[in-house]
Order: sequence, then structure tokens, then C-alpha cells
Amino acid sequence: MRNPQLNAQGELTHLLTLEGLPADVIGAILDTAAQFVSIGEREVKKVPLLRGKAVFNLFFENSTRTRTTFEIAAKRLSADVINLNIGVSSTSKGETLLDTIDNLVAMDADVFVVRHAQSGAPHLIAEHLASLGRSHVHVVNAGDGRHAHPTQGLLDLYTIRHYKQDFHGLTVAIVGDVLHSRVARSLIHGLTALGTPEVRVIGPRTLLPTAAETLGVRVFHDMRDGLRGCDAVVMLRLQSERMNGALLPSAGEYFKHYGLTQEKLALARPDAIVMHPGPMNRGVEIDSPVADGERSVILPQVTFGIAVRMAVMSIVAGAR
Amino acid sequence: MRNPQLNAQGELTHLLTLEGLPADVIGAILDTAAQFVSIGEREVKKVPLLRGKAVFNLFFENSTRTRTTFEIAAKRLSADVINLNIGVSSTSKGETLLDTIDNLVAMDADVFVVRHAQSGAPHLIAEHLASLGRSHVHVVNAGDGRHAHPTQGLLDLYTIRHYKQDFHGLTVAIVGDVLHSRVARSLIHGLTALGTPEVRVIGPRTLLPTAAETLGVRVFHDMRDGLRGCDAVVMLRLQSERMNGALLPSAGEYFKHYGLTQEKLALARPDAIVMHPGPMNRGVEIDSPVADGERSVILPQVTFGIAVRMAVMSIVAGAR
Amino acid sequence: MRNPQLNAQGELTHLLTLEGLPADVIGAILDTAAQFVSIGEREVKKVPLLRGKAVFNLFFENSTRTRTTFEIAAKRLSADVINLNIGVSSTSKGETLLDTIDNLVAMDADVFVVRHAQSGAPHLIAEHLASLGRSHVHVVNAGDGRHAHPTQGLLDLYTIRHYKQDFHGLTVAIVGDVLHSRVARSLIHGLTALGTPEVRVIGPRTLLPTAAETLGVRVFHDMRDGLRGCDAVVMLRLQSERMNGALLPSAGEYFKHYGLTQEKLALARPDAIVMHPGPMNRGVEIDSPVADGERSVILPQVTFGIAVRMAVMSIVAGAR
Repeated sequence: MRNPQLNAQGELTHLLTLEGLPADVIGAILDTAAQFVSIGEREVKKVPLLRGKAVFNLFFENSTRTRTTFEIAAKRLSADVINLNIGVSSTSKGETLLDTIDNLVAMDADVFVVRHAQSGAPHLIAEHLASLGRSHVHVVNAGDGRHAHPTQGLLDLYTIRHYKQDFHGLTVAIVGDVLHSRVARSLIHGLTALGTPEVRVIGPRTLLPTAAETLGVRVFHDMRDGLRGCDAVVMLRLQSERMNGALLPSAGEYFKHYGLTQEKLALARPDAIVMHPGPMNRGVEIDSPVADGERSVILPQVTFGIAVRMAVMSIVAGAR
Repeated sequence: MRNPQLNAQGELTHLLTLEGLPADVIGAILDTAAQFVSIGEREVKKVPLLRGKAVFNLFFENSTRTRTTFEIAAKRLSADVINLNIGVSSTSKGETLLDTIDNLVAMDADVFVVRHAQSGAPHLIAEHLASLGRSHVHVVNAGDGRHAHPTQGLLDLYTIRHYKQDFHGLTVAIVGDVLHSRVARSLIHGLTALGTPEVRVIGPRTLLPTAAETLGVRVFHDMRDGLRGCDAVVMLRLQSERMNGALLPSAGEYFKHYGLTQEKLALARPDAIVMHPGPMNRGVEIDSPVADGERSVILPQVTFGIAVRMAVMSIVAGAR
Repeated sequence: MRNPQLNAQGELTHLLTLEGLPADVIGAILDTAAQFVSIGEREVKKVPLLRGKAVFNLFFENSTRTRTTFEIAAKRLSADVINLNIGVSSTSKGETLLDTIDNLVAMDADVFVVRHAQSGAPHLIAEHLASLGRSHVHVVNAGDGRHAHPTQGLLDLYTIRHYKQDFHGLTVAIVGDVLHSRVARSLIHGLTALGTPEVRVIGPRTLLPTAAETLGVRVFHDMRDGLRGCDAVVMLRLQSERMNGALLPSAGEYFKHYGLTQEKLALARPDAIVMHPGPMNRGVEIDSPVADGERSVILPQVTFGIAVRMAVMSIVAGAR
């Protein structure tokens, strides 16, 4: 069975997940992104690659931050951007997801950026487009349920490559609520594809997937043990609904065990970088001196995120 | 009394309703739209006709779908588009409709696309602009109360002309809740203006206007009788508030009598087309095999709708 | 201590308040705005001054009208505009204001247009940018708490200058709820900076600041006394929450004493102009014959407001 993200020529036509994406395809995205990073520094931050093309931000789940990064990326590529907050729109009129897509395709959409609370929604759309023979319409997953958030995974990879040059020999730790995190899942797949020798997940038993080892990672419940020797530490956001739920005693207790402090960070390698997908809960999963400290690359992640999204959209829109 | 939609030169300066619009004006819109249909198929889907002009989408009633089609159409014409969801804005501060309009005119608006729950609101705005001597500001009705939805009517006409070439000799049936439908009203006026010999309305007594015959249509309460010999069947959306209201026993009962199935459609002409303004209630007014069948032109309607809205906006903005 | 709005070269780099802004800087903004007024009258209402730059409308407090004027102004300057209604976004996820700003700076924002319910929020952002060394990112205050609304103040100044040429010899009255009005505060600072010899505030004791005289204005509680000999009368909007609150007996009583009628206006100079920031409460602070009368310049204010906002954004974005 062919990878549904690649066309018959092996080109990336949708970005749905990093799982199963060939290392050379991931590498090509990161290389393209590197060219776009410099555009953000120019006086005129625009390139005409998507001029006259229509990018639809289909957010079935609200996320101003992610939507904004895609909107900026698309506008820098000179696309026309249409923001659709679908939660309050057609679906409330009882229209099915695929009827909505059919309508937007009929409006000559070129790229769908899709955020959906249900895992698999972007896949479903991509399959539907294939069944219609609409190979010139492209889907970019902007986060689906607990499944994947591939552009976040790619910007994390970009950031690590930027600071560490190369994945060989690296130890990367992902800390926190891995169980519910599509960010963690995408990053693990990406790190593995690029040959990272050691990927660790650190967290309490209640927030790690059972059988996490099957993902090819090492599991730590003690943060100090897990951080030792790491080159990069990726902190995950603790969703507020977890803080006082059944899975954790309290936010304060969580911080004590899994919050990243200067003192805990000292156990990692001296040149270790600290990452976070944002928005941060300061004093919960990360202490302010670390978040704002010299090892933090949290804001460069945001900048790289625009470039990575430009790269993904320009690559898929260029596929035949 | 002059048609308020035409200027002293007989040019279309506002699009308020298809009622009373001369056949040659309608024909010119459809001809212009035909040129724009091909733009949607190009690599760069833009023309500079409205460059530097400001199109305001004034939606006093929420409709993401219709707003999106106008937004896309305006952006393809290179206009600057400002979306205003007025329900939550100035009017909530007690400002009158015409004060809002005066303010937007003072911001150098060029085109107002107006959706309003009250019949006549776009007329009121057009009259107000005339009283101010603002002949270079144009109004396009995007649906007002139960009164009119002229761009929907035009795209329906475009679709019929596309598939049937010509209105002479045609029998067109409109099925469902004609009583509450501005879509039906606009289409009936358009079909009549273009010389369609037979326009039928089909529905239960409670959903057809009393004295529907005065609109120049034939009335059928039995769907099978009404479909016989039709060239085009236009299904109307059944609003959910009707489904369990005083006017109908139930959605299931409605489908039994007025839902379009393959079996009922077989009574129409073998080359009859099936239309629907969307969004569809599958299994209520239309059965999925029909909606997705080879006679359905529901998605081409959407494509033509963009072109028709581009045509209307470029024509009115070009009027002196 | 340097004025935080000016850079080391004395150029305007942020617009935070008119308080303490040098007269020549204000004059330069008004002169630049005069050039932009003519652009609104052209066929193509665009200039490429901010092409490729990103303007973020950060509205922590909802205001469709003000947001729209900035959006139009930025689009006429060819900027990419991103609207963020922050009330419903990141801050609801517990992210701090400055973390939000850091993220948007990392997305290569060029200009922040900030509306916030808290006085001083735009200052805080400007200071933060300075502390980061981000001198190429600019803040424009679009209204903060009761503190300042400098672009409204500037458009009021522009309007007075347009009709009266010069501020020397003028008497300007500001009428109504001066106590809660950032509009009044900004206008008073601007008028004073430009050398207006007499600025009056007129209102009931409960709606004027205690020790209003320290602002350099003359205080009147009797509207007829206060209007005598005025060249310009600026009516303030009475917020609906004041109308039946502890500070006023009723809207009707307010109109009787402080509503601007033709009869009261006759006490001002025969060529006096009438201004209002909008939206108006007709029959509360202003009578309709005055609002729509020949001395009203309320709609030209709106037109000038676009030009003033274009001027401010182009000037700050051009600062080194």
C-alpha cells in the first residue's frame, strides 16, 4: 500500500503524519525551511510561490496560535488565505465533514490546513480527495486529536538540527504528558526516522502510554535519571484539565517532580537546549529562569515554525 | 420610477433582487461569469479588476458559507476584503444600521455585500447611498430575510444555462419549503425573466405560498406529478426549525413525500439535472444516491457561484 | 529619561500617548496624514509602503470599529494584516501578555496595534520590546483603559486643523463623560501641545475628573455657559453603563442638560464645527438634527481617521 502522503512520483502531496515519512522527504522539508528562515529577516517578507492560490485554514478545533502561524506562512507565500472556524459554521447546520470539503474543493481550494479534535480527520479528507481524483488539492495536518501534529514535529526537528547540526549521537528527552500529546508522538516518529540513537520519555506512569517502549523510546519516571546526558530537553505543556484531574495530585506536586528547574537542567549536558511547543505554564512544567534562560530555544522554535510551514505548503502545492 | 438597481445609464449599480431586472442585464452577468469560470482553473487565480478597492462583507446574519464565497470572489478580483460580523459589533452598541453604513462609506468602502435577517435591508442601504449622492458605492444583496438571494438565483440560472444552453422549452421544478425561501423567490423571478415556459413549485400546502400561481408558477402537492417531464429539479433545504414544528409532522414523513430519491427522479426527463443550494440535509430533502449521482450538479453550482459573484462585483464596481 | 515613544534619533518609534509628544512630531503625523487623505479618493487606494510587513491587530478588548479602521489603513499600506482577538485565545490558556508578545515577535511581527482594557498595557509592551533590543518592532496604542487613545486624538486634531487651519486663537469644548474618556484625555494633551489657548470641559460633576483644571482646561457645569464662543464642540459618547448608574439620574435627564441641540449649538460661534468619536447615541448626547446638520464633521472625522492611522503606521515602521 502506498504512503497516502506521497504521490505516484514519491513527492509529498499531503502532510498528515511523520510516521512512515521517509528520512529524505523530512530532510528536504528542513532544507527548504532553512531557505525561508532568511525571508523573515528581510524588509519585504514575501515570496510569490503561492500567488493566486487559495489556502483554507479549516479549524474544527479552536487554536489561534497555530492558525496564526499558518496564516502568516501562507501570506508570506502570497497565497489568499481564508480562515474558517468550522465549529460555528456548516457543521452546526448538520452538514457532514466531507460535504464541507466537497464544497470548498468546488470553490477551487488549493491547500487545506486542518485542525480537528478527532484523530484521522486529515487522513479521511486526503483519502476523499484521492477518491475524487483531486490530486491538485493538498492537506496539511495542523493537529488531529491525540494522533499527530506533524508541522510541530518538523519545527522541533528543525530546531534540534539547527543547534546540534546532526541527529547522530544525540540523546533527546521528552518530558511530561506524553500520553495525550500529539506533539510528542510526531516528534518521536521524526527523531526515529532521522536516526536519533536515544529518545527518552519522562513522566509519571499516569501520563505515559502503556508500552511506550514499543515506540522505540526509553522510559523514565524519575526526571533526574532521565535528564542525565541529554542534548535536548523537550518540555510538554500540561493541559489545565489534567492538573486537578484523576491523573495527577496537583500542579504544585507535578512541578516538584517534573517541572524543569535550573537545578534539574544541570543534570543534562552543559550545552543542552530546552524546548517547549507553547503556550507555557510557567511554574507548572517549566520554571521561569529556565524558560527565559540562555539554554532556552523556545522562541527560535516559533520563528522556525513559520519557515517550516512555508516549506510544507510550498512543497505540497508544487507536487504534481 | 427608476429601477433602484440601475443607474441613469441603465447600468447595474447594485444587485438587490432579480425581480424586475431586465433579461439583458441578467444575460450580461451570466456572460461575464462564463469568463471567470476559467480563472478558477488557472495556476494564478487572480485578476486585477478590483485592485485597491475595499469590499466589506456586512453579515448581520451569520453565514460562513455565503460569506466565504464572496470573500474568495473578491480576493480573486484583487480587492481588499473586510469581514464584519455586525451582529456582535456596532449595532450591539445601539448604533443604527444607517449610521454604521455612513461610517463605512466614510472609510471609503467601494462595495457592500449585505446579509440581513430583515427583508429590504439592502434596498434601504442603496436608497440611503443614493440620497447621499454616493453613486460610486455599491450594494450586493447576499440574502435578506425571506425576500431575495439574487446571487444564488443567478448561479442557479448559470447552472441551468450551462447544462441546457437555453431557457426556451424548459420545465424547471423547485421542491420544498418555497414559502420561507428567498432562494426560490429569486430563482422564480430569474427563470421568468429569461423566458422559461414552465416553472413548477412542489411542496406541502403548509410550505407553499398562498396564491403561488400569482408568481407565474404551476403548483403541485404531489411530487411525482410535479417531476414528470422536468429538465431541472431544484431541491430546497428544509430548515431544521421546520422539521418538528407546526408545519410538518416529521423529517421522516417529509422525506417520504418530498425527498428526492432515484425512484422519484426517474419520472423527470432522462437528462434532468438535480440542483441544491446547500448545505444539504441528506435523507431529509435529498437521498444520498441522488445527491452524489451523475445527474447531480450541486458541486458545479458552487464553482459557478464564485464566478457569478466575481461577475456581479466587477460589473457594479465598473458602473459610473 | 527619554520619551519611550521616540528612538535615540528622536524619531517616533511607538505611538503610546499624546502626553509629552513634541508638537513637531504631532505636526509631522498630521502632515503625512494629509497626503494619505487623497489616496482614499483614488481608483486604486493602495501604496506599497508596508509591503511584506506584518501588522498584528491585538485586540484584548473587542472593538470592531477601531479594529476595522486599522485593518483598512494597514491594507492600504499593502501590509499583511493578522487580526487576533486575544480575549478568546492564548490568555484564556493562561499565557501571560508578554509571553504572547514574545511569540508574535518570534513570528517576525513588525507593528502591534494594541487595544487593552488595562491602562498602560501598550507601554508595557513597548518597554518589553526595548528590553529585548527589538527596536524594529513598533507599538501603536489603539486605546488602553481610561488612559489614552492617541490615534483618535490625532484624528480629532487633524479635523480641527482641516476646518480651522490653525490652533492659535481657538476655543475647543469637550462635552460629557470626560472622567472615563481616554478620547478626551488624548485630545486635551494634543490640543495643549499644539498651543490651543482655551480648552474647556463641560459636564456634570460626577463625570468630570476632580481637579480637571490641573490638565490645563476650564471647567463648566452649565453647557450653555461652556459653549459660548467655541470654535469646535467635541461631544463624547455616553457609555450605556453610565445611563442608569449611580452617576446620572437618567439618559433623558442627561440629554436635557448636556445633549447637543440646535438651540444650544447656537451659542457657539456661527462657524463652529461639531465632532463625535462615534458611535453616537442619538437623543442622548447629541440630537439628530445636529448630528446630521451642516456643522457636523463627524463623518469626515472617520475618513481622516484612516489617513491618520496610515500616517502613524508608516512613520513608526520607517523609524530606524
